[in-house]
Amino acid sequence: MASPDFSYGTLGFQDIIVTLDAGVATVLINRAKQRNTFGRVISSELLRVFELFDKDDRVRVVIMTAEPTAPAYCSGADISGGWGGLWKPESEKEGEHAHRDSGGVLTIAILRCRKITIAAVNGHAAGIGMTAMQLPFDLRFVWEGAKLTFPFVRRGIAPESAASFLLPRLLGHSRANSLLLTGEVVDPSSPHLQGLYHKIIPAREDVYPEALAYARELAAQTSQTAVAITKGLLQHPGATIEENHLLDSRALRILGGAGDAAEGARAFKERRPVAFADTLSKNLTSWYPWWTSIDIKHRQSKL
Amino acid sequence: MASPDFSYGTLGFQDIIVTLDAGVATVLINRAKQRNTFGRVISSELLRVFELFDKDDRVRVVIMTAEPTAPAYCSGADISGGWGGLWKPESEKEGEHAHRDSGGVLTIAILRCRKITIAAVNGHAAGIGMTAMQLPFDLRFVWEGAKLTFPFVRRGIAPESAASFLLPRLLGHSRANSLLLTGEVVDPSSPHLQGLYHKIIPAREDVYPEALAYARELAAQTSQTAVAITKGLLQHPGATIEENHLLDSRALRILGGAGDAAEGARAFKERRPVAFADTLSKNLTSWYPWWTSIDIKHRQSKL
Amino acid sequence: MASPDFSYGTLGFQDIIVTLDAGVATVLINRAKQRNTFGRVISSELLRVFELFDKDDRVRVVIMTAEPTAPAYCSGADISGGWGGLWKPESEKEGEHAHRDSGGVLTIAILRCRKITIAAVNGHAAGIGMTAMQLPFDLRFVWEGAKLTFPFVRRGIAPESAASFLLPRLLGHSRANSLLLTGEVVDPSSPHLQGLYHKIIPAREDVYPEALAYARELAAQTSQTAVAITKGLLQHPGATIEENHLLDSRALRILGGAGDAAEGARAFKERRPVAFADTLSKNLTSWYPWWTSIDIKHRQSKL
Repeated sequence: MASPDFSYGTLGFQDIIVTLDAGVATVLINRAKQRNTFGRVISSELLRVFELFDKDDRVRVVIMTAEPTAPAYCSGADISGGWGGLWKPESEKEGEHAHRDSGGVLTIAILRCRKITIAAVNGHAAGIGMTAMQLPFDLRFVWEGAKLTFPFVRRGIAPESAASFLLPRLLGHSRANSLLLTGEVVDPSSPHLQGLYHKIIPAREDVYPEALAYARELAAQTSQTAVAITKGLLQHPGATIEENHLLDSRALRILGGAGDAAEGARAFKERRPVAFADTLSKNLTSWYPWWTSIDIKHRQSKL
Repeated sequence: MASPDFSYGTLGFQDIIVTLDAGVATVLINRAKQRNTFGRVISSELLRVFELFDKDDRVRVVIMTAEPTAPAYCSGADISGGWGGLWKPESEKEGEHAHRDSGGVLTIAILRCRKITIAAVNGHAAGIGMTAMQLPFDLRFVWEGAKLTFPFVRRGIAPESAASFLLPRLLGHSRANSLLLTGEVVDPSSPHLQGLYHKIIPAREDVYPEALAYARELAAQTSQTAVAITKGLLQHPGATIEENHLLDSRALRILGGAGDAAEGARAFKERRPVAFADTLSKNLTSWYPWWTSIDIKHRQSKL
Repeated sequence: MASPDFSYGTLGFQDIIVTLDAGVATVLINRAKQRNTFGRVISSELLRVFELFDKDDRVRVVIMTAEPTAPAYCSGADISGGWGGLWKPESEKEGEHAHRDSGGVLTIAILRCRKITIAAVNGHAAGIGMTAMQLPFDLRFVWEGAKLTFPFVRRGIAPESAASFLLPRLLGHSRANSLLLTGEVVDPSSPHLQGLYHKIIPAREDVYPEALAYARELAAQTSQTAVAITKGLLQHPGATIEENHLLDSRALRILGGAGDAAEGARAFKERRPVAFADTLSKNLTSWYPWWTSIDIKHRQSKL
């Protein structure tokens, strides 16, 4: 999908509003009346749009945000119908092993999106508002007044959206324990969150504009292929440093022969801005992905 | 062991004093005359009591602490008889591979305790006072005046109690290197310790009371089964994010059908405190543990 | 190589100046006219000298630094001839999989050096100046005015020198993403770098003297064998905590029977400074290394 000509505004989404401008796609969470809770519709719409972003060469950076006047960035899963509303029908028929948490399915899709992803957290966040709606993103901007919590142990439920995998990787196990085993409500300046946010912003209404300005700069100055390969190396680094060395050596050799790297070296020498032209659909090496992708659908996967 | 009726005060411990109140068990290190050093007796008593805490439904949170008037929280291993006093007899007979470090045995037992564990470090700590007596706990409270050190390279010995495994996981390798390879004495506010302590407390005598108030709140507000499953997911998250997603999906499905999760959702809806009733002995899924536990006893284990 | 009698000053290096005094070896980067860029000569000289440091019993601590008047600590790879100048000839003949990044080769050699290693970053650093010239070191000292950047995505190239493996291990994935996926220029006080530097020093000309004073203290107070074993445990900790427990138990048992540990216990008891005499060539256990070293040379290794 080189540069498709559809407009994201025409795709008929209900719970999100999606726009694309100058290489930056914005996803606006559009459920203020439901406190921006996470339910079936937004789940499937986000899943679809992140798969599109991954393939659409026009997209270089993705931002997800909410209206700064909404009651929350995302106040958690919609459990107005109890937890039961969240189960996949398969798990009712075939047993608990057949359930697939929709937050986890979305988390994996966001991680697999090969563009730079930014969560612009301009409001309170709880539960899945902290996990799937934040942890799989590459960067997080946050309003300094946001109230943030992973409340699972206080609700009698397990952490979802692969938070028990991602949070220790992002911040280390000490902070992950402090957050996941207490369910405490914390501010962005809490010692338990240090390192999680790329930037903390005083005014709620400035979070998205600041993220957007940063995203535009990244969209203009970064190579689409180099970003994809770098995300691949960070997520699939090899089991040992020696294996990583073989992987990054090969990546360097491949990218170094391509257009963007030559342009990067020329621009550096000539002290001028870069003008990267390589795209994933035309220029990504066939060696990518160098790992085996795991299918998480029931019957395709088991432990 | 649903809710046994023995009192911890009757178990005849020598080097520790154990009490239980309102779901919170407290272990007081009781060797002030020996500067709270770690020796054979305290080692076996702690091992026994953490195995009891794990099984005793009455226990929801465990705190370990010392008298705030003691010379130290724990000043290290008792090497008054040289290092030789620490060797297991097997290693003398069968060779160095047969030795099992008692700090490591205790560390693994504390990690395997399925309740929330808190080290209330109200005094100086060195060596095993930093490792087995702190690192395997879920949360650490500390007195801001404590002098803290991992002195192994300055004693000609290796880091023990699996510190070379736990410290990088808790804080990352950069801080672990700064601590383990220099043996420097640091304060809780040192940049090398950032993230290790859940809370730093100005007055030494306030460390235990603050930890206790926090523990009581956790005991009242958290689900015993959700805590056990969350600890399991953090310690055994699966090798990949996809595997973690399968594990937490199953955990969500199992817990979501049980009493505590239903109570958690109802209490949230009704805006009232939770009243969790599920216990490990009655309500923990038979799927737990989903991993194979490794026996570390000599002859049951080898590399 | 017990204590060889050669002087590092006689080895005929061109791009580095190497001295040894009181157990501390200093490597001075000597390419100020080329902005201390990284090229073929310095690469092979550093590779050689770190292999010597590893084996030379006289060396207990290694410092790498630059003239504080140089334009930079290391301003990156020398790409005056484009990226092509960096490829190994094998990769031209045999394909991209045959390339071995020279920064990665050096990184692995520095990690394998069994002495304490310190990067004294007394100037700006970019690209390989941040990766191979800093990340594999045990400790990093830095000038607070240094401008630091991992610019790879802005040059159209992949992160090199195993940075995609090392940086997340050192600081966690959140900070590694913030650094590697944005290519931002940051100060040592940036939140994205917290934990990376052992010490941040106000005056540029004080960085090396402070590192040297610290290194001399470490050289006098630490055991060569305990340092080597500790580095081994940190880099090869075993796959599980149980495996780590077996490894550190054996390490404790081995070291505890040797000279340095006995001296460490005696000095502690007698409240006097230690006088460690054990050396790697004479006293390191034949059990070391307990892992299989992986050969990264082309044809000896493949994925």
